[in-house]
Amino acid sequence: MKGFSKLTQGLLGQPMLDILTNVCALEAAGKKVYRFEVGDANIDPYPHVINATKEALDAGHIKYVDSLGILPLREAVCGYTERKLGFRPAVSQVAVMPANSVIDFVMRCVVNPGEEVIFSDPGFAVYIAVASYLGIKAVKVPVREENEFRLNPEELLSRITDKTRLIIITSPQNPTGGVMTEAEMLRVAEIAREKDIYLLSDEIYAENLYDCRHYSPAVVDQCRERTIILSGFSKGHSMSGWRLGYAIGPADLIAKMGQMFETVYTCVPPFIQYAGISALNTPAELMAERISRYKKLRDLMVEKLNEIPGITCSIPKGAIYVFPNITGTGLTSKEFAQLVLEKAGVAVVPGSCFGENGEGYVRLCYVRDEAMITEACAAMKIALTARG
Amino acid sequence: MKGFSKLTQGLLGQPMLDILTNVCALEAAGKKVYRFEVGDANIDPYPHVINATKEALDAGHIKYVDSLGILPLREAVCGYTERKLGFRPAVSQVAVMPANSVIDFVMRCVVNPGEEVIFSDPGFAVYIAVASYLGIKAVKVPVREENEFRLNPEELLSRITDKTRLIIITSPQNPTGGVMTEAEMLRVAEIAREKDIYLLSDEIYAENLYDCRHYSPAVVDQCRERTIILSGFSKGHSMSGWRLGYAIGPADLIAKMGQMFETVYTCVPPFIQYAGISALNTPAELMAERISRYKKLRDLMVEKLNEIPGITCSIPKGAIYVFPNITGTGLTSKEFAQLVLEKAGVAVVPGSCFGENGEGYVRLCYVRDEAMITEACAAMKIALTARG
Repeated sequence: MKGFSKLTQGLLGQPMLDILTNVCALEAAGKKVYRFEVGDANIDPYPHVINATKEALDAGHIKYVDSLGILPLREAVCGYTERKLGFRPAVSQVAVMPANSVIDFVMRCVVNPGEEVIFSDPGFAVYIAVASYLGIKAVKVPVREENEFRLNPEELLSRITDKTRLIIITSPQNPTGGVMTEAEMLRVAEIAREKDIYLLSDEIYAENLYDCRHYSPAVVDQCRERTIILSGFSKGHSMSGWRLGYAIGPADLIAKMGQMFETVYTCVPPFIQYAGISALNTPAELMAERISRYKKLRDLMVEKLNEIPGITCSIPKGAIYVFPNITGTGLTSKEFAQLVLEKAGVAVVPGSCFGENGEGYVRLCYVRDEAMITEACAAMKIALTARG
Repeated sequence: MKGFSKLTQGLLGQPMLDILTNVCALEAAGKKVYRFEVGDANIDPYPHVINATKEALDAGHIKYVDSLGILPLREAVCGYTERKLGFRPAVSQVAVMPANSVIDFVMRCVVNPGEEVIFSDPGFAVYIAVASYLGIKAVKVPVREENEFRLNPEELLSRITDKTRLIIITSPQNPTGGVMTEAEMLRVAEIAREKDIYLLSDEIYAENLYDCRHYSPAVVDQCRERTIILSGFSKGHSMSGWRLGYAIGPADLIAKMGQMFETVYTCVPPFIQYAGISALNTPAELMAERISRYKKLRDLMVEKLNEIPGITCSIPKGAIYVFPNITGTGLTSKEFAQLVLEKAGVAVVPGSCFGENGEGYVRLCYVRDEAMITEACAAMKIALTARG
């Protein structure tokens, strides 16, 4: 008899679906909505990236290619890693695929249903969603505002059991913007080594850092033993629509992930991969200029949010989000999100969508026009003041 | 302790990997190889498709979009289905994703590990690979040359058990080129209805038909109850590098597949989806012209293969392959493939890669230059004759 599989019971609805449905309804009714909920820069990619995509189409890069990625992109990733982290992985350690697929494939290749994966709370909603649909137990490590939203390695250690198969570490972090120190990262690497557990280092925001450096636990084993770097082009290069990312990891695991990707996807379109090469060759001054634009927007957003009664917002060191504390309003994060959407036309994500420790916070992506930030914060201030 | 999951044990190596490794070694050594093993036309897509991709990039269709696909493409798929099959699905019945992902997602959403899926033998290697890695039992229905490689619905019926959750039917078929009759298709639909089982109709080659019509079992329930149509742009529109396909099915199942795609992939790049709209709007005379080119190549390939002692090749009615019987050579299909690669520089796929009933046959994709077909067949003839 037909019916859905058990697996479908673990498929989560998009946790911010309620908000999104309301946003769409308001927009359909002709109302203007200031949208800060989507984790995407309101800035286009560099023209050279778009041109590289078009040139690859013209050059005939339009047929099946190796499921692990085209050789020139894999080599470019090796070179980029060497420049950024000081070690050069072998090409056989690199697989080209969307960043979300890396999360899914790593979990499926190293964790059985019923076993455990550890990550931070609040944390990226896709970790939660993937673990849920695979029947893997998600063990959470709280990250707290008083520790600048950095994961404490000793708290991580205390949660490891004989069922732990994978640790996910995220720096800079989504949704909080927290950035791990070098000492903390090395300690996480040490813990993974001592406990003999795989370590997925989600470095998707490694280019989104302000006045501090990016540290990766991968420097310890150079991704040869247990560390898998996840990165991609959506955040650092504003290329969300390309769906292009990569994994760097132990060659035997990368080979398994490649077999899986070949089976369910064949390959990433080659003309998209050429865009990735172009992005990795972006001149440093262009990257620096973009980061300084982002920083101005971050600072403006933090300043304006802190002018609103009941809200306190610390300055995040990385990523593309602010994660203000809204407990002073007396509202839950979901109530807050509903109120500012209805009364101020501002769309934000309730912190509770990222785990129970996100309660009392909301997430806003600040890579928007300055005017939009100013207007939205003014509207929120009025809405929240009127309420009291 | 770290180690791979149980799931990885079911990941199959690419069944034609031995051949491909040898092909690459020969090419690296500077030897010319006539490559007929890849299931891809040696013909570019229409210029309007490439232009549509570039125009979408210029128009800024470069951000996240709905995981089920952009509305204009989903509507175009509804319109195309109405023109081709006589019924118009609702937009909520359409999900845009790569064709291989449709196979993976349908199996995962309706079949539990240990339950059964039925498909033909020989059959598409991805059905075998997906069932294997998911721990799903693949139940095979032999398709035979004496029945023009059409699946016999009564043989299908006899293999249904109380564990059967999904039937996959493929017409035109890969690797044989067999095309089901209308009566057979309606009988398959009836069996699925009577037994209350999902039916995945793989129609990826529906545009690759010669002097006969395409019949879909979906006309019975209009994809509202149990039938899922799988289609895409790689074969009919020579757009393999775009990785663009779609599913049409019951809205509740499509919603589950969309949640899964959102979790592990987010969405298909929007500029790629615009290329799909352009492809669906290809003028009928252009499509007809291309099919007549394909037919000439098919006929040439069949003629030349039949001139080789030990080979008999029937004329396939659809798809882009010939599947000659090579038992007259006294070789297994793997031995044959190795011999013609080594002695004639011709790459073909052993029929045994598609299941045990493929033994005694090899697959060649004939959408190549005429000269390449003639030269390769001449070289095979010499190599096989010299041997005896």
